[in-house]
Amino acid sequence: MAVTDLSPNYAQSRLLKHGPASSRSPASYANRFVDLRCGRRPRVCCSLAPDQVKAPPAPVTNGTASKTECYGVFCVTYDLKAEEETKSWKRMINVAVSGAAGMISNHLLFKLASGEVFGPDQPIALKLLGSEKSFQAVEGVAMELEDSLYPLLREVSIGIDPYEVFQDAEWALLIGAKPRGPGMERADLLDINGQIFAEQGRALNAVASRNVKVIVVGNPCNTNALICLKNAPNIPAKNFHALTRLDENRAKCQLALKAGVFYDKVSNVTIWGNHSTTQVPDFLNAKIDGKPVKEVINDTKWLEEEFTERVQKRGGELIKKWGRSSAASTAVSIVDAIKSLVNPTPKGDWFSSGVYTNGNPYGISEDIVFSMPCRSEGNGDYELVPDVIFDDFLRERMKKTEAELLAERRCVGHLTGEGNAYCDLPEDTMLPGEQ
Amino acid sequence: MAVTDLSPNYAQSRLLKHGPASSRSPASYANRFVDLRCGRRPRVCCSLAPDQVKAPPAPVTNGTASKTECYGVFCVTYDLKAEEETKSWKRMINVAVSGAAGMISNHLLFKLASGEVFGPDQPIALKLLGSEKSFQAVEGVAMELEDSLYPLLREVSIGIDPYEVFQDAEWALLIGAKPRGPGMERADLLDINGQIFAEQGRALNAVASRNVKVIVVGNPCNTNALICLKNAPNIPAKNFHALTRLDENRAKCQLALKAGVFYDKVSNVTIWGNHSTTQVPDFLNAKIDGKPVKEVINDTKWLEEEFTERVQKRGGELIKKWGRSSAASTAVSIVDAIKSLVNPTPKGDWFSSGVYTNGNPYGISEDIVFSMPCRSEGNGDYELVPDVIFDDFLRERMKKTEAELLAERRCVGHLTGEGNAYCDLPEDTMLPGEQ
Repeated sequence: MAVTDLSPNYAQSRLLKHGPASSRSPASYANRFVDLRCGRRPRVCCSLAPDQVKAPPAPVTNGTASKTECYGVFCVTYDLKAEEETKSWKRMINVAVSGAAGMISNHLLFKLASGEVFGPDQPIALKLLGSEKSFQAVEGVAMELEDSLYPLLREVSIGIDPYEVFQDAEWALLIGAKPRGPGMERADLLDINGQIFAEQGRALNAVASRNVKVIVVGNPCNTNALICLKNAPNIPAKNFHALTRLDENRAKCQLALKAGVFYDKVSNVTIWGNHSTTQVPDFLNAKIDGKPVKEVINDTKWLEEEFTERVQKRGGELIKKWGRSSAASTAVSIVDAIKSLVNPTPKGDWFSSGVYTNGNPYGISEDIVFSMPCRSEGNGDYELVPDVIFDDFLRERMKKTEAELLAERRCVGHLTGEGNAYCDLPEDTMLPGEQ
Repeated sequence: MAVTDLSPNYAQSRLLKHGPASSRSPASYANRFVDLRCGRRPRVCCSLAPDQVKAPPAPVTNGTASKTECYGVFCVTYDLKAEEETKSWKRMINVAVSGAAGMISNHLLFKLASGEVFGPDQPIALKLLGSEKSFQAVEGVAMELEDSLYPLLREVSIGIDPYEVFQDAEWALLIGAKPRGPGMERADLLDINGQIFAEQGRALNAVASRNVKVIVVGNPCNTNALICLKNAPNIPAKNFHALTRLDENRAKCQLALKAGVFYDKVSNVTIWGNHSTTQVPDFLNAKIDGKPVKEVINDTKWLEEEFTERVQKRGGELIKKWGRSSAASTAVSIVDAIKSLVNPTPKGDWFSSGVYTNGNPYGISEDIVFSMPCRSEGNGDYELVPDVIFDDFLRERMKKTEAELLAERRCVGHLTGEGNAYCDLPEDTMLPGEQ
């Protein structure tokens, strides 16, 4: 993709390599911006104290570092080519993360930087999207990333304009969203956050890699993902995911618990539908130690009446215990979601992801984002799993979550280019602990 | 080591496998305790809602799981022997963490569980120490660990009694400490936290593995480590560490920044002395790209006057930016500290750790915990690096931090068995951001 010109509106923008931390008044952004995009070479900048900004240039002392294309005292460059050759590293990838100052990101970014997600031979550039309000906090996160000395983390940039931050992104992890305020309905939240995801979709469409993989975490994540993909017509719709992996993980834990086995014995768990209380954790297709769950757990009442509730109320229980939402395990589930796309799925198993329904083999309405069972060859892509079974109980619940997603889609018609919105959501289906 | 008997005071204690989360009133602890230590086999229990406690036993469905030695509905057992055989895993290790409900632990525990620290073939048991006040929050952390489905995490237990939680611990990561309150002097903090570390030392001495490795993070960490080791005479003194790795990491970043190189080019950085403002980040022995720092950074004034200050004020800057202390990068530095002990140190390099000074080759007073350059063969042990150089500037600063540690030792004489305390600490040397 062509690099976007440094047109005037770009020069006013706020993408900063994480460099000079000082004097970030709006007036100084234009200069800083030009400073720091110098030469567009991979680089990382440690942060500076205010009095360092006008310090004389550091002596160039390292044969491998080229500073000729770059100015600005601490705009550190390095020769990634040499690193790739000597360390057998892969080509660096660009990973954009929104909501970078939040607690989920605070866990996730360090996992990304450590190599836990993309592997020990994959250098990465992190592009952190914050807001006006959170900008300083994002700087704080970037400082902690510096102090962590992760060898694979080659570039950190921060900004508040998605058109800047998403530039050339190969992964976009969209975590940031407004939380639901007091008295706010799901419809209000759909509108407020929908605006954000519409803009981020347009930004991805304009500047991201043409094959960017997008994982939407901010709620209501299914419909946010739909809005996002509708605003990014030049990116394949199948590249957009809504995160239902935490629900899957919780479902596996609850099944393990009930069956009295360790959680690694549970497989083939699908979360169908919406990331809301209408979601359907599927015990019909799930397996324990290779056997159908229903053969292992002889308690239909529990499976039909309690299991789903246990999965769903987990977040609320955590808030009660812990006083905070489940940032750490959410970050783990994002890691799982990415790893499921960049590693081959184990034979016979699958994972859940909220994906675009066009062409699905399950009879689910087209043109929504619905969590379904997926497999990957590890190339970042996935295919839907054809060989799943249905019964009336499962079908009925799938219809309900499908109806909700269709209603949510009508609610955001003004954001997806389908015309006016018509909002008739019948009830509050936010998951406990995510409000 | 012999397993401690279930004497009456044990039966009253609060070590809980992370199992039934319900009705944890003091009255119920005795039963729960006996319940959950059933058979002392490796096991993990998912948490339960109150109404699950009296549910009928789950059907035993898994050939490898033995429930005969264990009762309690969801006290899940598994056959680690089979796991070891089929997955080529190592013997499980016990890792105890204090301050388990705090933010540093919230980062660290997930790193430990993921395999990032001890490796992908090392199953671990986490033993989490909280306080009366934080107990529910620790349960929340344990719930998030469950939902993370880490295959290597085979056991999670939580409690508030170090004599329980440290049982058979092979690593003890002592993070919990009281923060300094308003108007509190370092001497007050030494006393308050010293009491905690004296008790934890006695507990380690009584119940931990005879070769437990202890990393003290809670401040003032050097003298806390000294108190701890003095109260654990049956554990080798050289097994106790005070964490100065975050200081080392920050020093490396600042040197990289000044030299205009990527941080992975900086090596051989020692933090000498106390984890306080008297600490000595050593630029005399440090190297950049294999060359002495002084040959690379031709700015003696910066090295002598600014470098140390930059390292030390980093925490305070972060608080200002981020509004929180540096939990994430502290957790990373604990990971680094452990990895430095369980992996061979790269040839020619070293790492810093606050360790017991007896027998040191640098002329530092004996019988204190002083950060020094260490190397490891990767067996959990270390040796001090003999070939370092000193000049007057370095010696003079080392004397100052040594004097402080000697004064701190006098302050805690009542906790180390050396008689009465005499406290004459001259000034406030808490690091910014750690107050």
